[in-house]
Amino acid sequence: MITAESIFFDVQKIRSEAPLIHNITNYVAMNTTANALLSIGASPVMAHAIEEVAEMASIAQALVINIGTLSQPWIESMIQAAKAAKKKNIPIILDPVGAGATKFRTDTAHRLLVEAPPAIIRGNASEIRALYHAEGTTKGVDSTYRSDEAVDAAKALSKQYNCVVSVSGEVDVIIENDRCIRIHNGHPLMPKVTGLGCTASALTGAFAAVNPSPIVAATHAMAVMGIAGEIAAKKAKGPGTLQLYFLDALYQLQEADIKKRLRVEQ
Amino acid sequence: MITAESIFFDVQKIRSEAPLIHNITNYVAMNTTANALLSIGASPVMAHAIEEVAEMASIAQALVINIGTLSQPWIESMIQAAKAAKKKNIPIILDPVGAGATKFRTDTAHRLLVEAPPAIIRGNASEIRALYHAEGTTKGVDSTYRSDEAVDAAKALSKQYNCVVSVSGEVDVIIENDRCIRIHNGHPLMPKVTGLGCTASALTGAFAAVNPSPIVAATHAMAVMGIAGEIAAKKAKGPGTLQLYFLDALYQLQEADIKKRLRVEQ
Amino acid sequence: MITAESIFFDVQKIRSEAPLIHNITNYVAMNTTANALLSIGASPVMAHAIEEVAEMASIAQALVINIGTLSQPWIESMIQAAKAAKKKNIPIILDPVGAGATKFRTDTAHRLLVEAPPAIIRGNASEIRALYHAEGTTKGVDSTYRSDEAVDAAKALSKQYNCVVSVSGEVDVIIENDRCIRIHNGHPLMPKVTGLGCTASALTGAFAAVNPSPIVAATHAMAVMGIAGEIAAKKAKGPGTLQLYFLDALYQLQEADIKKRLRVEQ
Repeated sequence: MITAESIFFDVQKIRSEAPLIHNITNYVAMNTTANALLSIGASPVMAHAIEEVAEMASIAQALVINIGTLSQPWIESMIQAAKAAKKKNIPIILDPVGAGATKFRTDTAHRLLVEAPPAIIRGNASEIRALYHAEGTTKGVDSTYRSDEAVDAAKALSKQYNCVVSVSGEVDVIIENDRCIRIHNGHPLMPKVTGLGCTASALTGAFAAVNPSPIVAATHAMAVMGIAGEIAAKKAKGPGTLQLYFLDALYQLQEADIKKRLRVEQ
Repeated sequence: MITAESIFFDVQKIRSEAPLIHNITNYVAMNTTANALLSIGASPVMAHAIEEVAEMASIAQALVINIGTLSQPWIESMIQAAKAAKKKNIPIILDPVGAGATKFRTDTAHRLLVEAPPAIIRGNASEIRALYHAEGTTKGVDSTYRSDEAVDAAKALSKQYNCVVSVSGEVDVIIENDRCIRIHNGHPLMPKVTGLGCTASALTGAFAAVNPSPIVAATHAMAVMGIAGEIAAKKAKGPGTLQLYFLDALYQLQEADIKKRLRVEQ
Repeated sequence: MITAESIFFDVQKIRSEAPLIHNITNYVAMNTTANALLSIGASPVMAHAIEEVAEMASIAQALVINIGTLSQPWIESMIQAAKAAKKKNIPIILDPVGAGATKFRTDTAHRLLVEAPPAIIRGNASEIRALYHAEGTTKGVDSTYRSDEAVDAAKALSKQYNCVVSVSGEVDVIIENDRCIRIHNGHPLMPKVTGLGCTASALTGAFAAVNPSPIVAATHAMAVMGIAGEIAAKKAKGPGTLQLYFLDALYQLQEADIKKRLRVEQ
């Protein structure tokens, strides 16, 4: 059961343990995701050099792999980092940014699913559909589908790769086999800030670092994203201020905020 | 004729069509430009891998090439992306960041002018002068000239490369052959925020995606930059808050704001 | 003697001279450090291509080398840039981000100490200890030691490499041989913003560009960091807004602010 209490318990765990989250992520979202991880209480590190990724992943509590602004040498690093994480039982989160937009991204996401098997895939509806149908349906990195239109693909992927699939959108849908949890939090201004999807993946890493259940961790992360976004949107005048108030909201987040706002369907 | 109506018509077109803008840009400005594109209503994507640039450029409505934080492999990607864009008649915007500061940047900008011919060059006065005179006059990435001191160079470049040249500065000067439009909007705090020049280039891409006239698109973009900057500067206490209020202003921009503030000389 | 007057004198020098600061830094902090340099009045440039680093470093007034998000080709560029800087007597600042977290980072930092000898090393306590003891003690990029626990290592490094060592932390300790200056400014919210350590290194570059004494420059920079952080924290509601108000505070900084707040132990 996902409750305000279960969510806040994990928030407090992140704040007290400050788990190290190793991110191999895109240039656009590096700063934003590092700041979101710090704001929630985790300790982010970004490292992509083949010479150090295995060592860095080994000392982390979660590994977040994000294929935005991809290039060939980074793919090798992602796989090496994932192998090291696997060996130490460190959870891997895969964000298949832009899968479906180009063959290179779709193929790389598939390769990572096999060679760096994630505990959780976190993507938008277009990306999740593209991973399943192996067809180009993504407009750049933005989704052209609602998350409910990716439920069948998510269920199939979950079974095929034995992982949780977290589909973000107006409603977030988190899936494990045929189990399906929906989070109705969030705000329409959020997709107007770049890298908030990547931030969702990074926070999923932070929750996976303190909670052994991937579906619970993924759901907690999406609930916290949505609630912090709602709090930020109350004050924000646009995407610029939303971005900053969002970080403040993560930092200030109290159990009462979660109790008041959580809208989960499970 | 550039009018508040013509500008706002294009803003609304961007907002309703959300054109995909493919950016191959520098690490410093990636986040900022992605956010500015989202704030005005476009859909940004950043991709630089040789394996995918042609495919990504082909599905975009504009391609923005920016040579800040350049390296050799990115140049090949820029040229491949430009070739794909050319084939589909997708407008290319070139931002020659730091041309004149090093031979590598000046040479690369020249190579791109030939191999990836842009519809619009958008740079500061030092960069535009350096492109024409092929001499080093740029202090890093900041201009040491006023935009009016680059008018002759801009006119010559426009004729030589059959493109529009948009020179940003205290006064923005947009040139096509001997035609010359000046935008007197903007605020002295704007050059204190990194990447606002790159943002001007990205927004120029968004306007070029919805308007077939490069000189009109370039002018609309500079007017919107300047006006959003003025609105932001009214509330800002420094470069930090300016940056955020600028994104909010892009998002909130109304026709009345443009009518009230537009200072165009044509 | 470090005084409010000596600090503000250099702030004014930066504002009037706008020294060009060449940064070879990590992807996470590029935007933040560029903005901080602009806010204090300097002119930042980021360039890492082997084809241009020597030329860029030669026209700069300081060179800041930062090994976060390192990769092999960048190391060669760092060394080439440093050699060009050395030839022109341009001060080099080294930020050994994550030294101690992986062998690659520790080894690279050591290689740079020898091949690109800095005027100032600026790091956190874990990094400085790792450089001296050559042992892994860093948790990612965050320190697990207080700055006072790195004083012995800092003194030894200062003597060995004939440079100033600036250790940031709750108390900043700046060391040259056995001389030791402490800055007690700053705010607990500051480590919750990513890249503020990197920003300290960049600002150290700006002060080294206008002040020939590395220990004075390093101390001035840490004092300004701490004081701007305090001013920002008064208004901030979390790490998001702190980041922006910090840039505003750098831009607005007056002698009276420094006089009122400076807490230096020398």
